[in-house]
Amino acid sequence: MLSCVIHAAHDLRVEERKTPQPKTGEVLVRLGAGGICGSDLHYYHDGGVADFRLREPLILGHEVAGEIVAIGPDVTTLKAGDRVAVDPSRYCGVCYQCRRGRANLCSEVRFFGSASRFPHVQGGFAEFFCAAETQCIRLTTDISFPVIACAEPLSVTLHAANQAGKLTGKRVLITGSGPIGLLLAVVARHAGAREIAITDRIQAPLEVALRIGADRAINVAETPGALGEISREIGGFDVALEASGAPPALVDCVESVKPGSRIVQVGMLSNASVPLGRLIARELELVGTFRFYEEFAEAVELLERGRIKVDTLITDQVPLARAKEGFELASDRQRSIKVSLVG
Amino acid sequence: MLSCVIHAAHDLRVEERKTPQPKTGEVLVRLGAGGICGSDLHYYHDGGVADFRLREPLILGHEVAGEIVAIGPDVTTLKAGDRVAVDPSRYCGVCYQCRRGRANLCSEVRFFGSASRFPHVQGGFAEFFCAAETQCIRLTTDISFPVIACAEPLSVTLHAANQAGKLTGKRVLITGSGPIGLLLAVVARHAGAREIAITDRIQAPLEVALRIGADRAINVAETPGALGEISREIGGFDVALEASGAPPALVDCVESVKPGSRIVQVGMLSNASVPLGRLIARELELVGTFRFYEEFAEAVELLERGRIKVDTLITDQVPLARAKEGFELASDRQRSIKVSLVG
Amino acid sequence: MLSCVIHAAHDLRVEERKTPQPKTGEVLVRLGAGGICGSDLHYYHDGGVADFRLREPLILGHEVAGEIVAIGPDVTTLKAGDRVAVDPSRYCGVCYQCRRGRANLCSEVRFFGSASRFPHVQGGFAEFFCAAETQCIRLTTDISFPVIACAEPLSVTLHAANQAGKLTGKRVLITGSGPIGLLLAVVARHAGAREIAITDRIQAPLEVALRIGADRAINVAETPGALGEISREIGGFDVALEASGAPPALVDCVESVKPGSRIVQVGMLSNASVPLGRLIARELELVGTFRFYEEFAEAVELLERGRIKVDTLITDQVPLARAKEGFELASDRQRSIKVSLVG
Amino acid sequence: MLSCVIHAAHDLRVEERKTPQPKTGEVLVRLGAGGICGSDLHYYHDGGVADFRLREPLILGHEVAGEIVAIGPDVTTLKAGDRVAVDPSRYCGVCYQCRRGRANLCSEVRFFGSASRFPHVQGGFAEFFCAAETQCIRLTTDISFPVIACAEPLSVTLHAANQAGKLTGKRVLITGSGPIGLLLAVVARHAGAREIAITDRIQAPLEVALRIGADRAINVAETPGALGEISREIGGFDVALEASGAPPALVDCVESVKPGSRIVQVGMLSNASVPLGRLIARELELVGTFRFYEEFAEAVELLERGRIKVDTLITDQVPLARAKEGFELASDRQRSIKVSLVG
Repeated sequence: MLSCVIHAAHDLRVEERKTPQPKTGEVLVRLGAGGICGSDLHYYHDGGVADFRLREPLILGHEVAGEIVAIGPDVTTLKAGDRVAVDPSRYCGVCYQCRRGRANLCSEVRFFGSASRFPHVQGGFAEFFCAAETQCIRLTTDISFPVIACAEPLSVTLHAANQAGKLTGKRVLITGSGPIGLLLAVVARHAGAREIAITDRIQAPLEVALRIGADRAINVAETPGALGEISREIGGFDVALEASGAPPALVDCVESVKPGSRIVQVGMLSNASVPLGRLIARELELVGTFRFYEEFAEAVELLERGRIKVDTLITDQVPLARAKEGFELASDRQRSIKVSLVG
Repeated sequence: MLSCVIHAAHDLRVEERKTPQPKTGEVLVRLGAGGICGSDLHYYHDGGVADFRLREPLILGHEVAGEIVAIGPDVTTLKAGDRVAVDPSRYCGVCYQCRRGRANLCSEVRFFGSASRFPHVQGGFAEFFCAAETQCIRLTTDISFPVIACAEPLSVTLHAANQAGKLTGKRVLITGSGPIGLLLAVVARHAGAREIAITDRIQAPLEVALRIGADRAINVAETPGALGEISREIGGFDVALEASGAPPALVDCVESVKPGSRIVQVGMLSNASVPLGRLIARELELVGTFRFYEEFAEAVELLERGRIKVDTLITDQVPLARAKEGFELASDRQRSIKVSLVG
Repeated sequence: MLSCVIHAAHDLRVEERKTPQPKTGEVLVRLGAGGICGSDLHYYHDGGVADFRLREPLILGHEVAGEIVAIGPDVTTLKAGDRVAVDPSRYCGVCYQCRRGRANLCSEVRFFGSASRFPHVQGGFAEFFCAAETQCIRLTTDISFPVIACAEPLSVTLHAANQAGKLTGKRVLITGSGPIGLLLAVVARHAGAREIAITDRIQAPLEVALRIGADRAINVAETPGALGEISREIGGFDVALEASGAPPALVDCVESVKPGSRIVQVGMLSNASVPLGRLIARELELVGTFRFYEEFAEAVELLERGRIKVDTLITDQVPLARAKEGFELASDRQRSIKVSLVG
Repeated sequence: MLSCVIHAAHDLRVEERKTPQPKTGEVLVRLGAGGICGSDLHYYHDGGVADFRLREPLILGHEVAGEIVAIGPDVTTLKAGDRVAVDPSRYCGVCYQCRRGRANLCSEVRFFGSASRFPHVQGGFAEFFCAAETQCIRLTTDISFPVIACAEPLSVTLHAANQAGKLTGKRVLITGSGPIGLLLAVVARHAGAREIAITDRIQAPLEVALRIGADRAINVAETPGALGEISREIGGFDVALEASGAPPALVDCVESVKPGSRIVQVGMLSNASVPLGRLIARELELVGTFRFYEEFAEAVELLERGRIKVDTLITDQVPLARAKEGFELASDRQRSIKVSLVG
C-alpha cells in the first residue's frame, strides 16, 4: 500500500509498505481523508515536534477518517463498509489520569503518527491503517471525509476551550490565525463568547476569521498598537487563547487580559521567556492544553449535526500519492488553511 | 519622629520626619513592631522590587502593628489606647476587581511602603504612622506586636494557598525556605496537607522547616537528585508553591508535580525562561499570587486564637533606631529568618 | 400620571399617581414598554410571591425600558432623550455579598415593584418612573422597547445558566415552557448546549420551543413515560434547569440527570417535598438562582447586537391603560407567552 | 465460621456459615474488627436503609479490617499474615462514572453488606470474608484493628468534606453529633476550618464534640434559639454539613448559612419537605454525598500517621459472637458512639 513516511527533516517519501492486518479488537480502515496538522509540518521541517524527535521512519497522520474494509477478532460494533471517524488516541484505561477523567494525560497513551514513544506509533497517512474498535465512531450521515477528519483538530480546540473555563459571555482574545486559531474562533462563537478578537501577522487568514465568527481581526505586524487600544477600550479581555506558538504573542496575552484572568497556551513552543513579574502582579493563570479526550465524540456530533461548520477552512484536497505537494502547500499560510490528503 | 527611609539602593537612613496627623477616617498609630519583608530588602539592595522603582525617598514597612495614639474625625470603632494589627492595603472599593471580590487586584489600591504609585505611599517603619480605620483590626488578646505583625506575611501565604486551590489531602511541594516558604509550610500543615516537602540551597532554614510542619526538607544544592527521586516515589506532587523566586526552582516544580497540577508562583521574579513545552504536554497551570484581601482578618484571628504559631520564625528584634543593622541581619539567611523592628 | 397598582389579590387598578421627581443621581424615565412577569402575576392572583406579601399598594413592573425625560442633580452620563434599558435592582455596593461579586444577594437591594422590603419599592408600570443613573444602560441602536425590556427576564435566565455551570457541550433538560423556560432554551442554545430537551403539560409553548432552539419538546401530560425513555437513551442529562415551579417536575429532574449532576431551581415555589434519598445516592447538586447581577449588561448587549432574538416570544402588546386586560392575557398560557405593556 | 446475619427487621442472628474460598485476585481475611455503622442499624431496626430493602439474609458489615489468612490465584502484592484495611467497594472500572473519577457513583459497584443489588453482596461481620486484592491496603504500622476499621467512616466524612468544597478558613456548621457528625468535626478541624459549631438534641455526644475539635456545641433541644443567635453573631456560616438525617436540621442549615453557601446532606433520609423558596432566594446549593472513593487510601494514611485520631470515638468493643448486644449498644446514643465488633 502507499504510505506517507517521514524519514528525517525534509525527507518525506510516499513509499510502499505492507498492508497491516487487524489484530483482536481492531479494524482495518481505508483512508478517506487525512488533514495535515501543524505537528506533521514540524516533523517535515524540523524532524520532530517539541521534545519528540524522530528516531525511525514514521508514517505521519492523525486527523483521519475512512471506511472499514476488514475487522479483526472480537470486534462487535463495527463491520466492513462502515464509514468512521478515527480518534488517534488509544488510552490505557487504568492509569491515574485515565481513572480521574483526564485520559488525554494517560501515561501509556499510543497516539497515531507520533514519535513520543519508541518504537514510534505509526499514523494514518496510508492507503490502509489499523485502529482499535474503541477509537472509531461510526458515521450516521453522508458527511464528507475531509470534513469529518476535522473532528480531530476541532477536538483539540474544544479541549483548549474547556481548559479556558467558560467562554459564554466572555471577551475572548485568540492570538494566531492558523487552523487551530481559526477553529478556536469557531468554537468560541459556538460557546456564546461575547466578543472575539483574533490576531495574526498576515492578512489572509484574518479575513477568513471575520467570516467564520470573529468580531475583530488584528494584524499585529501592520498595526502594532491596535491590540492594546482595543484592550483598554473594552477594559481587558476575560480570557486568552494563545494559538501562535510565538513568545511575543504570549506577552500580548499577558498584557491584554484583565487581572485575574486565564491564558491557555495552545500553540506549541519549548522554553520561552515569560514575563512572570507581570503574571504575578496581575495574578494570571497560564495553563497548558494537551490533545483531547471526550471532546472527540462531541466534535463528531457537532460536525454531523451541522452545529459547527468547517468547510471554509478546508482549502485544498491533494491525493495521498502527491503528499509532498500537500505538505508544501500546507506550509504556505498565504495560500492554504487546512490541506486534506485524500485516498 | 524617627523614620526608616530608603533613598536609593544601599542608602537606608533613619532620619527625623514630621509626625503625620490623622485625616478624616484615619487613626495615628505608634509602631509596636514591623517585620522586614523580602520586598523591603529588594528596595534596600536593588532600589526597587520587580517593576516598581524608587523615584523619591520612601519610608519602608508594611508588616506593622501598634497602638493607637490619636484618632481623626469620623472614626467610630477605634479609640486611643487600642492595640491594632494594620492591613497595609487601602482599597478603592468601587473598581471592577473590588466589586468582584478580588480587591487585592484593585486598580487604585494604596499599599504601605510601596513605589508602585507616584508619589509613593509611605510605609510604617516610623515611630508613628496614619492608617484608615478600615485598615485596622483591634486586638482582643495580649498577643505581642512582633507576632501579630506577622499577620501580613501570613496573609500573603494564606492567599497563595487559596490560589493553589484546596491543600487538604494534597501532596505539596514548596520550593524555597525563606520566611514566606516557611509560612507556606505552616499554612499547608494547617490546611491538612497530606505530605509537605520543602527545598532550599542552605541548610539552616530547612531544619526550621522540619520543626514547624514539613515532612521532608531537601537541600537541592547538596543532593540535587533527591527531589526527583521523591517525586517518582510518591507519584508526583499534587500542587507546588514556588517561593524562592529562582527560575531553576520553577523548573523543579514543573517536573515534580503530576500532570494536570497547579503551580503557584509566590516568589518574586521578572522575566524568566519557562519550560512551556513541558507545561503544555503536562497540562499544568502556572498561576500568580499577589498580596491578599480577606485573608488578613483570617490571619489575625488565626494568630490571636493560637491556631497558627509563628514564634519560631521571629528570630530577631531590633530597635527602629538601628534599622540598618536589622536590614543587614535580615539579608543573612544563615543567621536570621524574620527580623522585627520594634518601636 | 397613569399607574398600574396592585392593592390586593385580584385588585389591580390603573389609577392616577403624582409623577415623581428625580433625586440626586436619578433620572425620570417615560415608560416605553414593560413586560409582565410571572411574579407580577403572582401578586395579581395571590397577593404576594413566595415569602413576600403585599402590605400596601404597589406599582408593579420590573421589566422596563423607556426614554429619559428629565435628569436629577449630579447625573453625568445620561441626558433627556436617551433611550435606556433599566436594571430594576439598586445595590448597596458595600455589603458582604456586593463586595464578593454576588450583588444579586445584596442584603439591602431595592428592587422595582417588589414587596420584599417595607415600605415596598414601587415599580415601573407607570407613565413615568425614577431610576438611578447606575441602573440605566443607554441604548445605541433603534431596538424596540418591548424587545429591550426583555433584557430583564433574559438576565434572569443568563444568571440561572451561570448557576448551572458550563452549558457548552452539555445535554440540558429544561422543565417548564413558560417565558423563563423558553428563554432558558434560547440561552442554552446560545451557550452551545449539545442537546436541549424541554417539557410542559400544554402543547402550545412546546411548539414555540422547537422553533427557538430546543431539540426535543416533551408533553409530560400526554406522554408521561417519554422523558424517562429519552434520559435512558442518552445516558442521562448533564444538567437540569427546573423552570416550572411544580414539585413533580423537580422529581423528573432528579431522575433524569446523570449521577453527580447539577439541578438549578429557577421556578418559584415554597416548601416542597424533595426526594432527598435520591439526591444523596445520586450525589446531585440542587441549587437556587436569584435574579441576576452583571448579566443585565450582557443581556442588553446580546439583544442590541442581535446575538439573541426574543421577538418570537413577545406575543402581545397592550397599552398601559388596559393593564388588567394584559394581566388576564398573560395568565393564559394557551394564548400568550410574553405580554408587554406599552406606554 | 461465625457470621452476623440480618434476616429481617429485628431478626439478627449469629450463625454458622461455610468459610468462603478466595477466587482469582481475591484474599481471605480473618476479621480483626468491624465497626457498626448507622446503615447496619437501619437494617437491624427497619429491615432496610433508604430505598434498599432486604430480600434475602445478609451478612452485615462494611467497616472492617483484619489479617490475611489465604490468597487466591494471581494475587501478587499481598500474602498471608498481612494486616489490611479493607475498602468495602469493588468498582467496575469501566463505566462513565469510573472513567471520570467518580467511582463512588459506579453503576456496577459491589459494596460489602448491602442490599442495593440482588443477590445482595455479603459483608464482613464474619470470622472470615473474601475481598479483592485491590480492596485491601496493607498496614505498615501496628495500629489496632478497631481504629483502622474507622478508615471507612472516616472516608465517608472526608468525601462529604470534599463535596463541601474547601473547609480551610471557613465557618462550618455540622448538624447532628452521631459518629459521622463527630468525624466531620475531626475532619473539619484537620482541614483548617475557622470555626466549627455542632448541634444535637442530646448532651453526651456534644461533650465529646468539644473535646475532639468543635468550637461550639449546641443542644438544639434545650436551647432552641441558640443556633440562630450564633449565626447572626458571626454573619452566617460559610458551609453546613447536615449529618442528622432529620428534616428540621436541614431547615436549620438553610437558615444559618450565608446566602450563596453550600449545604451537604450527609445524613440519610428519604423524601422530606425542603424550604425551596428560601433555597432559591438565598441562592443555596444543597448537595448529596455518597460513600467515597480515593478518600479511603487517604483515611488509612491519616490514621496510620496519627494525623487524625479517632480513639476517643471507639467507646466499645464487643466480640462478634455477641453481635446482637453490640447492635443494641450502638443503638443507644447516650451510652455509646462507635461500637466495634472484634474477632
